[in-house]
Amino acid sequence: MKIEVDFQPIGKHVKIDSGATILEAAQEAGVGISAICGGAGSCGACRVHLDDQEQVSKPNETETDVLDAEDLTEGIRLACQTKIYGDTRVEVPPESMTATQRTQVEGDEIDFEFEPPVEIKDLSLSKARSTDLQADFERLSAVVSENGRPAMQCRRLNIIKQIPGLLRQNKWKIRAGLRGDELVSVSAPGAPVLGLAVDIGTTKVAGYLVDMVSGTTLAMKGIMNPQIAYGEDVMARITYSTMHENGLNILQTAIVDALNELARDLCIAAGSNGEEETPDYQPSQIVESVMVGNTAMHHLLLGLPVEQLGLSPYVAAVTSPLDIKADEINLAFSAGATIHLLANIAGFVGADHLSMLLATNTHKKKGVVVSLDIGTNTEITLIANGRMISCSTASGPAFEGAHIRHGMRAAEGAIERVQIVDNKLAFQTIGNVAPIGLCGSGILDVIAQLKLCGAMNDKGALDEKHPLIRRGEKLLEALIATGEITGTDHDIVLSRGDINEVQMAKGAMRAGIELLLDAAGATAGDIDEFIIAGAFGSYISVEAAVAIGMFPDIPLDRFRQVGNAAGIGAKQALLSTTRRAEAAGIGKQVEYLELTVSEKFQEEFLKAMYM
Amino acid sequence: MKIEVDFQPIGKHVKIDSGATILEAAQEAGVGISAICGGAGSCGACRVHLDDQEQVSKPNETETDVLDAEDLTEGIRLACQTKIYGDTRVEVPPESMTATQRTQVEGDEIDFEFEPPVEIKDLSLSKARSTDLQADFERLSAVVSENGRPAMQCRRLNIIKQIPGLLRQNKWKIRAGLRGDELVSVSAPGAPVLGLAVDIGTTKVAGYLVDMVSGTTLAMKGIMNPQIAYGEDVMARITYSTMHENGLNILQTAIVDALNELARDLCIAAGSNGEEETPDYQPSQIVESVMVGNTAMHHLLLGLPVEQLGLSPYVAAVTSPLDIKADEINLAFSAGATIHLLANIAGFVGADHLSMLLATNTHKKKGVVVSLDIGTNTEITLIANGRMISCSTASGPAFEGAHIRHGMRAAEGAIERVQIVDNKLAFQTIGNVAPIGLCGSGILDVIAQLKLCGAMNDKGALDEKHPLIRRGEKLLEALIATGEITGTDHDIVLSRGDINEVQMAKGAMRAGIELLLDAAGATAGDIDEFIIAGAFGSYISVEAAVAIGMFPDIPLDRFRQVGNAAGIGAKQALLSTTRRAEAAGIGKQVEYLELTVSEKFQEEFLKAMYM
Repeated sequence: MKIEVDFQPIGKHVKIDSGATILEAAQEAGVGISAICGGAGSCGACRVHLDDQEQVSKPNETETDVLDAEDLTEGIRLACQTKIYGDTRVEVPPESMTATQRTQVEGDEIDFEFEPPVEIKDLSLSKARSTDLQADFERLSAVVSENGRPAMQCRRLNIIKQIPGLLRQNKWKIRAGLRGDELVSVSAPGAPVLGLAVDIGTTKVAGYLVDMVSGTTLAMKGIMNPQIAYGEDVMARITYSTMHENGLNILQTAIVDALNELARDLCIAAGSNGEEETPDYQPSQIVESVMVGNTAMHHLLLGLPVEQLGLSPYVAAVTSPLDIKADEINLAFSAGATIHLLANIAGFVGADHLSMLLATNTHKKKGVVVSLDIGTNTEITLIANGRMISCSTASGPAFEGAHIRHGMRAAEGAIERVQIVDNKLAFQTIGNVAPIGLCGSGILDVIAQLKLCGAMNDKGALDEKHPLIRRGEKLLEALIATGEITGTDHDIVLSRGDINEVQMAKGAMRAGIELLLDAAGATAGDIDEFIIAGAFGSYISVEAAVAIGMFPDIPLDRFRQVGNAAGIGAKQALLSTTRRAEAAGIGKQVEYLELTVSEKFQEEFLKAMYM
Repeated sequence: MKIEVDFQPIGKHVKIDSGATILEAAQEAGVGISAICGGAGSCGACRVHLDDQEQVSKPNETETDVLDAEDLTEGIRLACQTKIYGDTRVEVPPESMTATQRTQVEGDEIDFEFEPPVEIKDLSLSKARSTDLQADFERLSAVVSENGRPAMQCRRLNIIKQIPGLLRQNKWKIRAGLRGDELVSVSAPGAPVLGLAVDIGTTKVAGYLVDMVSGTTLAMKGIMNPQIAYGEDVMARITYSTMHENGLNILQTAIVDALNELARDLCIAAGSNGEEETPDYQPSQIVESVMVGNTAMHHLLLGLPVEQLGLSPYVAAVTSPLDIKADEINLAFSAGATIHLLANIAGFVGADHLSMLLATNTHKKKGVVVSLDIGTNTEITLIANGRMISCSTASGPAFEGAHIRHGMRAAEGAIERVQIVDNKLAFQTIGNVAPIGLCGSGILDVIAQLKLCGAMNDKGALDEKHPLIRRGEKLLEALIATGEITGTDHDIVLSRGDINEVQMAKGAMRAGIELLLDAAGATAGDIDEFIIAGAFGSYISVEAAVAIGMFPDIPLDRFRQVGNAAGIGAKQALLSTTRRAEAAGIGKQVEYLELTVSEKFQEEFLKAMYM
């Protein structure tokens, strides 16, 4: 008997034989669930949530060993142990997914009201005749104003141009999109009206296509930021755009082309038939978009100069929220499509961080709350004692796998989870293929495991006598995978040098947290909630991060990993004018703490290097 | 002894020997003053005005014969008779200039206050530093808002892009252009800020470059409308744009390219050195422009569809005043330059007519006033009994020389003035060269003279027995110039068929006037002022027009020929927000009378065909 399994929030379905495990169903459906131990039930990485357990096996001994009573009560099960006997819905939390599928689009959603910035109206006009010679635009305007609206404005000739044809082709009926008093779109009655939310990361770009009539999400997709070809990190891209003739234009064109392609792909994915030739949706139906990114990504998207952003004192060209028109940057959306850009907080605390604060409702929290986004720069915001203060710390690219001997990005073949199983370092790779290197979460796991088993001391020094440690060419190192396992002639190791890179990264991050707490007159112990956003941050083991002192040692249940909150925030600002106004409020309220001018920073940084 | 003569308003100067006549000085300066009789003093066409007559000869017998006492008291003299003995300023009224120089740029100016829509501010900002990290745009905005202005908006990224560079290159000083709360331009402190007014006629285009800081006119120039290559008149162009793939785009590109070139030429002409390579002014300094044209020219400039404008009921796509951005139609002005388009009144009464009503202050007149623009369509507005009513009559192209056997446009070699001198038809050509054909004013003069000397009756029939009339190949005709004079083997004649074309044209015009009077409950005798605008209308002999019944038979001093009032109105709307608001008011107030649905029109038209 075939039964149907529905994986959420990723939205994939599969029909499978009754009696299969959830993990098997997931593999069949192409849903990447973590399984470090290979399905033995020992790693506990494949935790999933079931609302309804009537059609599945009862928890077995392995599960009752690994999961605590509270987990079981809440409906948490191990995917590798649970067998399914009837149609079942499985919720896969972000931390249980492999990196490729957590990618960068999912995030915790919160409830908010659908209050779109563009109001859609299907209107019926009287036909022009010799005795009623009103011009087409004014004829439409008159009907719009009938309900006491102010006189209609229009900022794009390309909209006005469409009106005569649409009216005469559709028997004087027309669908109009109104953004306040501005006419931003016209189309045939009943035609789709779309919105697009985008989080433009330095590495990855996440897009969400929504129906602006119903507010439903039609499709989501993550792609790489093609600007990587011109520089891995923000500083490299600023340098490129400054040093190369036409460099700024090249970088802008790269991201704009990618966004146009993303919009096309999302429209095809959202269509009922998924056919490229006869799409149900088209990018030219997108009337509103919200885009967020760090300040450099924001400037490069808009073609704003970045030279001054790369030189002390690192000043942005503009930080306020902006409404621009899609055609100003060659986005092939509807003629009057507005691109709303949330406010940047400072040169190195961008709109993506603000969007994350919005999505997590950080600005509404009582008590002491830390919200952070981990990246080459880690942006941190603290709420405490009525203040909201942000800073940016140069945490470096260690967690992106750079400057680490066998480091790599979170891609297929990356070791993403490491755990000591039977006194050996067991691991799981993205895609369950032979290991190629270590991605950030794997690196963090290794170091935490080395610390916990006593192979590494609090200065980061490795113990040569420990069975997991060996002497490499120059430095001591921990062996993670032998050449035999990798299928190449080299082992995968983590060396003392690599550990030093991580110490710098986590030291900067922790020092930033401490300086914010100090500025607000609070201490780590006061923290009520610690929110971690972003692809990397959502996937790391919080225990590991606490173990090495990257995060303060507070109860684990105060941490919350929220996935791509920046993307979710963008989507909320797209669908709700109230949420958008809140975002603007955060931009005005938040204070910025410049760490480079703080004498205390160096001191805290050195202290925070300790594991 | 050399003396200097200053010709106004054309703005040309010349040094000439003392004792020369004003006509000789004008010929030396290249100022085309009419002289039908060749300087004999008999035609009275070379009337000029002198404010100060101290340095010129006293009126001679010829002048006292031709001019009346009132003329002489007001300072009117004949250019061919008046000798100059010292530096003198000569005002040449439009009706005394040859067609090429009256062209299409001059017009009567009226006083109004300089209240530009863009306010120019030279600002000094504090430098960004680590302890003052405000972004550049917000830093500028803060200084602008210091004087209680609302928060500054900006609608063009291309403006924001310039701010970081300008601030750092000019020691944090900057010149900002503010249009209400919108930042529309940034430049180095003290850089020129320009405005451009344009009247886009179906045949000719007139441009005026002004300094938006002082309000002075820097240069003016007339060019041909290059769309002529795609159709001589409005209907031909509508047909072209509808029938040819990409036709609308071709017509739009033609006029836009011409306007860009006109702007460049005006900037070069306005510069102190007139050098193309190092211009003092550049089109990229134009921040505001007002453009007027008939409804079809308006639509073709903006790329708006014109198909519905060419089909009954002839409906415009839009009639309201519009603010668009120059880059929307590829005008290479400043990044945020606004193009303001005055309102159209109806499909065949365009913004150029509204602009003419503004320039002549028609809307402020008391009593009964007729204002009209003669062209292929003649637009007429009547003020009477508290109403302002407009109509358009299809007067046809006869006055542009079309459908007339030896007709031609007002270009070099065109016979522009005809008068019976010594029982013969004497004439003057544009440029004083051998005659090629007859332009509109010449045609009108011939017919009026034929009527006055009895060679033509009130039905337009020619009298074969009259010495000026001969039998042509098919029809009777009046000989104007023999082949000997033209230097070719053909004579220039005006035939009975040509007269019929003029009867249709003037009949339509007069019928329009009568229908407006009827609609407002007035009669021709009530008319207090009769304003005639446009190149052709300003140059015709009003006596001739009255003689053939084109205009009602009212005292000649009630007629006023105002030159290119449409262009002057555009310039006023460019320089004065009050004038611009008045223009919008006219657009709202004016009623449109559709003649094609009037039963009375045909009746009046037939009646008005009589000479």
